[in-house]
Amino acid sequence: MKVLKILVIVICLGVLSCKEETPQEKVVSEIVTEIRNDIQRVEPPNWWIGFKNQSVQLLVKHPNIGNTKPKISYQGVSITKLHQADSPNYLFLDLKISKTAKAGQFNIRFKLADDSELVQTYELKSREKPAEDYIGFDSSDAIYLITPDRFANANPKNDEVKGLLQQGIDRTDDYARHGGDIQGITEHLDYIHDLGFTAVWPCPVLTNDMPSGSYHGYAMTDFYEVDPRFGTIEEYRKLADDLRSRDMKLIMDQVANHCGLQHWWMTDLPFKDWVNYQELYEENIDNWDWKVTKTSNHRRTTNQDPYASKKDHQEMADGWFVSDMPDLNQRNPFMANYIIQNSIWWVETLGLGGIRQDTYPYSEKEFMRNWAGAIMNEYPNFSIVGEEWSYNPLLIGYWQDGQKNKDQYDSNLKSTMDFAMQKNIVDALNEEESWDKGLVKMYEGLANDFAYTAPKDIMAFLDNHDKSRVYTEFDGDLTKTKMALSYLLMMPRIPQIYYGTEILMDDFDNPGDHGLIRTDFPGGWEGDAINAFTGEGLSDAQKEMQSFLKKILNYRKTSDAIHNGKTVHFAPQDGVYVLARMIENETIVHIINKNEEPLEIDLERFEELELKGKTLKNIISDEILIWNNSLSLPSKGSLILTTKF
Amino acid sequence: MKVLKILVIVICLGVLSCKEETPQEKVVSEIVTEIRNDIQRVEPPNWWIGFKNQSVQLLVKHPNIGNTKPKISYQGVSITKLHQADSPNYLFLDLKISKTAKAGQFNIRFKLADDSELVQTYELKSREKPAEDYIGFDSSDAIYLITPDRFANANPKNDEVKGLLQQGIDRTDDYARHGGDIQGITEHLDYIHDLGFTAVWPCPVLTNDMPSGSYHGYAMTDFYEVDPRFGTIEEYRKLADDLRSRDMKLIMDQVANHCGLQHWWMTDLPFKDWVNYQELYEENIDNWDWKVTKTSNHRRTTNQDPYASKKDHQEMADGWFVSDMPDLNQRNPFMANYIIQNSIWWVETLGLGGIRQDTYPYSEKEFMRNWAGAIMNEYPNFSIVGEEWSYNPLLIGYWQDGQKNKDQYDSNLKSTMDFAMQKNIVDALNEEESWDKGLVKMYEGLANDFAYTAPKDIMAFLDNHDKSRVYTEFDGDLTKTKMALSYLLMMPRIPQIYYGTEILMDDFDNPGDHGLIRTDFPGGWEGDAINAFTGEGLSDAQKEMQSFLKKILNYRKTSDAIHNGKTVHFAPQDGVYVLARMIENETIVHIINKNEEPLEIDLERFEELELKGKTLKNIISDEILIWNNSLSLPSKGSLILTTKF
Repeated sequence: MKVLKILVIVICLGVLSCKEETPQEKVVSEIVTEIRNDIQRVEPPNWWIGFKNQSVQLLVKHPNIGNTKPKISYQGVSITKLHQADSPNYLFLDLKISKTAKAGQFNIRFKLADDSELVQTYELKSREKPAEDYIGFDSSDAIYLITPDRFANANPKNDEVKGLLQQGIDRTDDYARHGGDIQGITEHLDYIHDLGFTAVWPCPVLTNDMPSGSYHGYAMTDFYEVDPRFGTIEEYRKLADDLRSRDMKLIMDQVANHCGLQHWWMTDLPFKDWVNYQELYEENIDNWDWKVTKTSNHRRTTNQDPYASKKDHQEMADGWFVSDMPDLNQRNPFMANYIIQNSIWWVETLGLGGIRQDTYPYSEKEFMRNWAGAIMNEYPNFSIVGEEWSYNPLLIGYWQDGQKNKDQYDSNLKSTMDFAMQKNIVDALNEEESWDKGLVKMYEGLANDFAYTAPKDIMAFLDNHDKSRVYTEFDGDLTKTKMALSYLLMMPRIPQIYYGTEILMDDFDNPGDHGLIRTDFPGGWEGDAINAFTGEGLSDAQKEMQSFLKKILNYRKTSDAIHNGKTVHFAPQDGVYVLARMIENETIVHIINKNEEPLEIDLERFEELELKGKTLKNIISDEILIWNNSLSLPSKGSLILTTKF
Repeated sequence: MKVLKILVIVICLGVLSCKEETPQEKVVSEIVTEIRNDIQRVEPPNWWIGFKNQSVQLLVKHPNIGNTKPKISYQGVSITKLHQADSPNYLFLDLKISKTAKAGQFNIRFKLADDSELVQTYELKSREKPAEDYIGFDSSDAIYLITPDRFANANPKNDEVKGLLQQGIDRTDDYARHGGDIQGITEHLDYIHDLGFTAVWPCPVLTNDMPSGSYHGYAMTDFYEVDPRFGTIEEYRKLADDLRSRDMKLIMDQVANHCGLQHWWMTDLPFKDWVNYQELYEENIDNWDWKVTKTSNHRRTTNQDPYASKKDHQEMADGWFVSDMPDLNQRNPFMANYIIQNSIWWVETLGLGGIRQDTYPYSEKEFMRNWAGAIMNEYPNFSIVGEEWSYNPLLIGYWQDGQKNKDQYDSNLKSTMDFAMQKNIVDALNEEESWDKGLVKMYEGLANDFAYTAPKDIMAFLDNHDKSRVYTEFDGDLTKTKMALSYLLMMPRIPQIYYGTEILMDDFDNPGDHGLIRTDFPGGWEGDAINAFTGEGLSDAQKEMQSFLKKILNYRKTSDAIHNGKTVHFAPQDGVYVLARMIENETIVHIINKNEEPLEIDLERFEELELKGKTLKNIISDEILIWNNSLSLPSKGSLILTTKF
């Protein structure tokens, strides 16, 4: 509690009713001359004027705050309702911020039983730009996914932060913290930008004050704080600004489904139903582990299945993801508000270019619809991508906004994740060609787009922080890796590439091992023998991949045909699969030749592309050719030809 | 040409214009006193009064008939238009049959260039029952699929029919004709009925006058004639009548996509575009074989794929299915009419209870929509099932009537085929249990029903005339075969079972071999050592399967819970998968235990079935039990319990 210095109360007219929704008729605002923070915790820590939704609900945590009746004297702001919680140490305040409210600070005054007063200064900020200007990622983007702890350690001073449960870094342990940080990303934006990416999605950087294993960031213990080992909120904001100055977008990885077991509220939960299986947790708090935990049954199809038993669905949605990640109960309306406001707070604070929402199907889907709806309502041009790890196109389609689902569910979710195509591409290139194996998997996989509302808004990838590295999936085959990546970047999708793919990072030693998948990016640590940022020490194959990706990504960056063009593809024949993207004045032809030997193909079959006699350029080799009767394909690989050069 | 005996022309008033659609204002009908059939071929060979669609288009084939201007004098019937074809030997007559037309016969008079006349008597019949009474198969049915040549040879006299290209039967050759016939089915309807089936789907029985290999019936050489080796149209009609008298349905297997190479019209095609790749065929008619044929590329996803090249789609739809099955061009409107009318002719002639349409996705889908729409327009309660051999639920859903496809396609097709579930069930029981293998394949496969318009109208099966026998798929495991069948019969589907499955027919000697899959049903031929109709010579396992199926099918026959009930299922756990069907006063619980050992399961998890304390009967063993806290499952197998007994 800070010391009160000077506080002038001018006049407070109008009686504030905290139980009823009677807005003040006339308020003469109290002028805040000094900031006071008497209250332990108020969240969101600030808010803004000018949202469509004029309500905000403050979570106030302080010993015995529940019985107080706070007051606010600020023009355009009123407390419309107070809500006590089950714990006496919480109070929830519904504020109405009318259109007339101006940005500024005001005090919330809590009168205690002994007539003493606690004062909390609260700020309403001005919004920095119009709601329409929060432009989300789309098919014109290429996203670089980073595990921050493993990318670059720009600031070794924050490697060890006193007071946190886990101390120290250990780069020899794949599941320990390695010291990468936000500044490490910011300092290498030129590298990422030069590669041709237009958006960065770092895995979560909020505080995970867990005793172990939380370097990944998905066990948040504070939804409003940057993990000090990753940096500060100013550094996070600088990352966003520096991206913006390069015309790039920052995508925030958020988690609505769960928190970390050491989240600050876990020792004093506001409500009896703040987290799922709370009673079980409170009964077993002293010997809590995976044996006691009711974990999710992971039967995610219960979200869609018209025949799913209530029991299975409840176990899926309410069960904890793992034993150290309490499952948040969004049926509790205060929890629901908390999560929605937290998301909006970060969009506004950072000027985000998108949200990636973790473990999407594990939360109640009605809540997720409301969550996404609330964000999209404030930011009509924003993008959110939800993670559902499913190879079933029916589920990918189900979650996308606008799908005419038979259960009337409409997700408000612009983007979903294409795990199906990930598997199709890997299978297609690994399998021997036959009637129903090999390239046909890519071809028929893409054909499934007929069932999607907006295929080009779906996020596609070859690997991520949870999946074996694509170079490993292809057993170290550079050519296959290139074929897969060039296809990924030509598809009508939003492509996402995991950091290090450009230098063929792998998990050969233990395929699929999470710690290994998230290997340190070479050059990110002082003294690294290899530096992938400068190219120092990279093998020829690694340099080739970097250069290959850079060429395609930089072509893609300004390619209207890829961003918005029509797609035409031809059924694989003789191990050759042709995909074209077309728009006025630009046609790109992507040809995969799976044969070990060079091959001459007859071009008559592709007549409808209307390329006959036209000059095209190979965007990798810069070679020029004329599209005539036939085309010589080099041995195994992909060829990208364009009419625009 | 038959001899004219007596023909009295009374009066013909009104001028018939054949080029314009000017109906006759007043016609005094000519009375037909003798039937004349001067014309080689008129199809449909008769028509009916009382259809919603008052038009019918007659195909008339006769040397140089194209230049004639036929006339009809019959109250309510007029020729609205004549169409010459490319061949002079065809004429197409558009007739209008107004509401005032009465059933009866009339003559069509063709005046030749030399003023002589050809006369063809044509009949308009009365319809035997109201359109609404043609009730198609639905989920209350269980369908017995038969390959007629291989089921029972009741009439050895029709085994060899003079004048046909293929002579003789040879039961030692799996690809020869074996002599089974329609009468063979009719004579064993009691057997089929007693087993508990309510519908019979025989593979096609129309004439396949092909030199070899057409015992299967899919290479039709006459769309209006029963193959004399299978019997006569009267026998086909008797089969329908005898089924009807048992409250059973006849499903006709039709083929709109192709005909047999020896179809009568192949030597004198009416139009230049009567079949696809007609020019290629006519150029190579003397050395026609698979090497010359442009066969389909079989890339059926081009029907849905928004990116499919025009070329691929054209090759899929226009290419011949095989080299001896010319691909019909339904873009030719006369062909389109021909096929639609042929289907309606058979529905009306036989009083069908459904159509199974072969190779559904190989015809132009716009035509198939019109075809199904025309039939459903005349028979609102009818059912059609289309064959698309795809394991992709997206395609199964796409073809079903009412699906809100993004390309606006609406098929008018009530039922599609569930190849996906067929594979899921086989995989589920063959695979070792793991997170994503084993029973979860059935569970998640059925969960996909969320994407279907009407899951219970989809036809499910474990095998058919094209797929390896299910007993072979399970490597001769009787228990697995029983588990699969009992599940099939409990699902919200229309189940189809292939003849001989009830006695564990197999294709072990060469799995998947078509001729072997379609093995002779024992007892269908005089002198067979084993007689499955009587049970004589069957093994214990065969008898057990017959009895097992009979019990379930006969229970199913009157089970409202299975026909129309709600479905609830529980995610597989510990190798146990529970599915329930429920309706007022009837709950059925189907439990699969995949464990080799008996198992006691806790019933608390199934509380929502509201069975606690209730008495249930095992429909196979007739044992009674009370649903309490736990249930003892015998070793591997399925258990079917019902509250209704």
